[in-house]
Amino acid sequence: MDSANLALHTDKYQINMIYAHWINGTHQRKVVFEAYFRKLPFGNGYAVFAGLERIVAYLTNLRFTEKDLSYLAKQEENYDPKFLELLRNFRFNGNLHSLAEGALCFPNEPLVRVEGTIMETQLVETALLNFMNFQTLIATKASRVKRVASQDVLLEFGTRRAQEADAAVWGARAAYISGFDATSNLLAGEIFDIPTKGTHAHSWVQIFDSELEAFETYAKALPDGVSLLVDTFDTLESGVPNAIKTAKMLEAQGIKMASIRLDSGDLAYLSIQARNMLDEAGLSYVKIVASNDLDENTIFNLKAQGARIDIWGVGTQLITAADQPALGGVYKMVEREREGKMEPTIKISGNPEKVTSPGKKDVLRIISKENGKAIADYICFPHEQQARNGGKLRLFDPVHPYIKKSVKDYEAISMQRPIFIDGELVYDLPTLDQIRAYHQEQLNLFWPEYLRKLNPEIYRVSLSQEAWELKQKMIEEHLGQHDEEFSF
Amino acid sequence: MDSANLALHTDKYQINMIYAHWINGTHQRKVVFEAYFRKLPFGNGYAVFAGLERIVAYLTNLRFTEKDLSYLAKQEENYDPKFLELLRNFRFNGNLHSLAEGALCFPNEPLVRVEGTIMETQLVETALLNFMNFQTLIATKASRVKRVASQDVLLEFGTRRAQEADAAVWGARAAYISGFDATSNLLAGEIFDIPTKGTHAHSWVQIFDSELEAFETYAKALPDGVSLLVDTFDTLESGVPNAIKTAKMLEAQGIKMASIRLDSGDLAYLSIQARNMLDEAGLSYVKIVASNDLDENTIFNLKAQGARIDIWGVGTQLITAADQPALGGVYKMVEREREGKMEPTIKISGNPEKVTSPGKKDVLRIISKENGKAIADYICFPHEQQARNGGKLRLFDPVHPYIKKSVKDYEAISMQRPIFIDGELVYDLPTLDQIRAYHQEQLNLFWPEYLRKLNPEIYRVSLSQEAWELKQKMIEEHLGQHDEEFSF
Repeated sequence: MDSANLALHTDKYQINMIYAHWINGTHQRKVVFEAYFRKLPFGNGYAVFAGLERIVAYLTNLRFTEKDLSYLAKQEENYDPKFLELLRNFRFNGNLHSLAEGALCFPNEPLVRVEGTIMETQLVETALLNFMNFQTLIATKASRVKRVASQDVLLEFGTRRAQEADAAVWGARAAYISGFDATSNLLAGEIFDIPTKGTHAHSWVQIFDSELEAFETYAKALPDGVSLLVDTFDTLESGVPNAIKTAKMLEAQGIKMASIRLDSGDLAYLSIQARNMLDEAGLSYVKIVASNDLDENTIFNLKAQGARIDIWGVGTQLITAADQPALGGVYKMVEREREGKMEPTIKISGNPEKVTSPGKKDVLRIISKENGKAIADYICFPHEQQARNGGKLRLFDPVHPYIKKSVKDYEAISMQRPIFIDGELVYDLPTLDQIRAYHQEQLNLFWPEYLRKLNPEIYRVSLSQEAWELKQKMIEEHLGQHDEEFSF
Repeated sequence: MDSANLALHTDKYQINMIYAHWINGTHQRKVVFEAYFRKLPFGNGYAVFAGLERIVAYLTNLRFTEKDLSYLAKQEENYDPKFLELLRNFRFNGNLHSLAEGALCFPNEPLVRVEGTIMETQLVETALLNFMNFQTLIATKASRVKRVASQDVLLEFGTRRAQEADAAVWGARAAYISGFDATSNLLAGEIFDIPTKGTHAHSWVQIFDSELEAFETYAKALPDGVSLLVDTFDTLESGVPNAIKTAKMLEAQGIKMASIRLDSGDLAYLSIQARNMLDEAGLSYVKIVASNDLDENTIFNLKAQGARIDIWGVGTQLITAADQPALGGVYKMVEREREGKMEPTIKISGNPEKVTSPGKKDVLRIISKENGKAIADYICFPHEQQARNGGKLRLFDPVHPYIKKSVKDYEAISMQRPIFIDGELVYDLPTLDQIRAYHQEQLNLFWPEYLRKLNPEIYRVSLSQEAWELKQKMIEEHLGQHDEEFSF
């Protein structure tokens, strides 16, 4: 959780490249990097950007401690001591632009842009990707769960199966951004002020001589918000009847029991039966919580089977993004300083989707003034005014440029915000509740077809004519230089 | 990475159960919990236990700060202030026994055993599982990679795709335990003294006007251990020839270039061609490194295709355990205090594999004196002397008891070690190199059939007759009480 001493949370090659640039006298040259992903995870139609707060804390605190420097001094590379002196005085003095957390985002859009010296931009790559990749992944997974249960209460329960402590805590935060209601992790609650929820485990019941004694004892100790786990022995024969007795005991004290929790077995069948039993006992106010390896697909199917579940506890599948546990975010150089001037740079690849788009770019979200809905994202250079001024816009797919569409009568919203300028934090970090609200507003801009879980409509991301032409020109130039390489 | 302030890194229900026990006057009752997993990950034949060092640091530092207590005071549960006082003075004063890190382990074996009050044993469940589950998972995944490339150099390269910072750093350590040679993560290197490796990225090449200039500049700055990334433009037409020129430049200075790195394309074909080109240029000493979404299956297949790769950089697939990103370790109560005496306790489930084995148990590894190889693991109560004394042993499968085997002339090695006794650390934490050596020794005890990647032989884990009979008796007793529940 600690963002205070993460200067060495980087790949060694970053330090080696900085060192080689320093030896070569080029470490202070200016460059621009953009972080983006190429493919949406889980077959989803969008991703939910997250990780910025962590990135801000990391950059703000980024310095090499004496311990770090003595560690580096012992490396086999035998760095020149003057280089370590340079690191001792290092601060991040670059610019960073980023989407706001909670924003919907799409493949090949620059999510984070870092401008600065080679030294500072290389150093931060690894940690920045580590935070952005994980938190965006979990926020996206959580958003999928939220889409299938938007009217229900969602609890994040994954800590014991998370990939170590940071994943549990930052993952709980990412889930909350996308609309989860609470987490079981108290540390996430403490750090981020996320509501926390917790009831009892099977071990509580195992301590007592009977399930009823266990339930009553628990209800006496924590009468408000009691949720009783009813599957320790037999859900319908023992757990639910004992929970009903306990609820009646609480009713006699004027207290309404909150819920029962199902944690095994056929959750559709059991929840329907339990609902009937509770209703027949006059306990229609008692909610049903379900947990047990749930994800958006099991929840969707349970609902389709008529499951009567009000509250979902989602653990392992969410906190590890089990069906795709990594977002392949990359960080690519798009401009470099040459003879004192910035110029675009391209990385060619035999794999066409890996060819980068040269030049530093903004992302504009094009919103129809007619219906208030997003039409497309438009990626253009900072100096391009056409879209920003609302001029007639020709959108085309950068991969299949014959797919074209003209739009007018729209608003162009700039998605990136300045976060650091010359190393100074210029962004007021929003509260988590503001981030949640922003996320919801952003969702509202999209037709449901883009948001559905299965086979969503592909949202259009267009390169401006100018950005596209520059890319084609640089590819051509490259092919001219390296003819034989691409003669497939 | 910080293990210092993790008291709240727990599920809220732990605190609520402790609170309810405190209200009920039972929080100081003694109980015994065991942590284990039910199913091996990745279809592997064994797992590699890891996480103990983190658990030790966590328990040693486990206390509630004033900030934690004020946070808890604001919770909707309205905990009695006297309870918070109890937490303020809390220290872990229980016993903990655990396998040593690097040990091979198997399903349903108690890996960690915690004995103490209800309060202390419940509080630590979540964090203990979080650490053990992740680190054991990654150590196991890394061990699979090591099995298919045991003679090669293995580098852990996953940080940017890891599930946040802790996963990167503790994951690098877990991989090192299982035989990886180095990590790219400098923080893991600093904290754990793991060797670190790093070369350069595509962005290094992109800064220069030609690939050759980029290579030569890098080689001049860091002549020792140079590894050149050769796929920025075209591996065989440009990258390898330029690397050869650079190696010749270094040779002229009496320096042998270390390696080239392939990061895209057909790694089998490219490595074979690159090897030929290097050899023809008299550079047979230059090694070939490969990276690009590798795991044990791709490495195995590349080797089968005759790939000439000496060093493997393994990233995403390892650090996230992508094909199964969670180990389902659980923590179950096996004994409880009742009327001043400890007694075994069982958790029944409609799902037979989820029925627990009552009573606190040791794990003995039965080693043949004839050939020095492991025959089976034997789980028995601490008071049982038969196996420890080398007496004739009848092994049987607890699930299929008709599968029996008698053994004599063996040595029984006790797998668990005392770590904390009455809250005091009694274990000298081994160094990482000792852990690696122990892991290798443990591997040597097993026939290769148990260690192979695909369809390994199932290693036998037996319950002692006494442990098995107790379990059957307690199931029977339970069925007697709850007849109707199990009348399937």
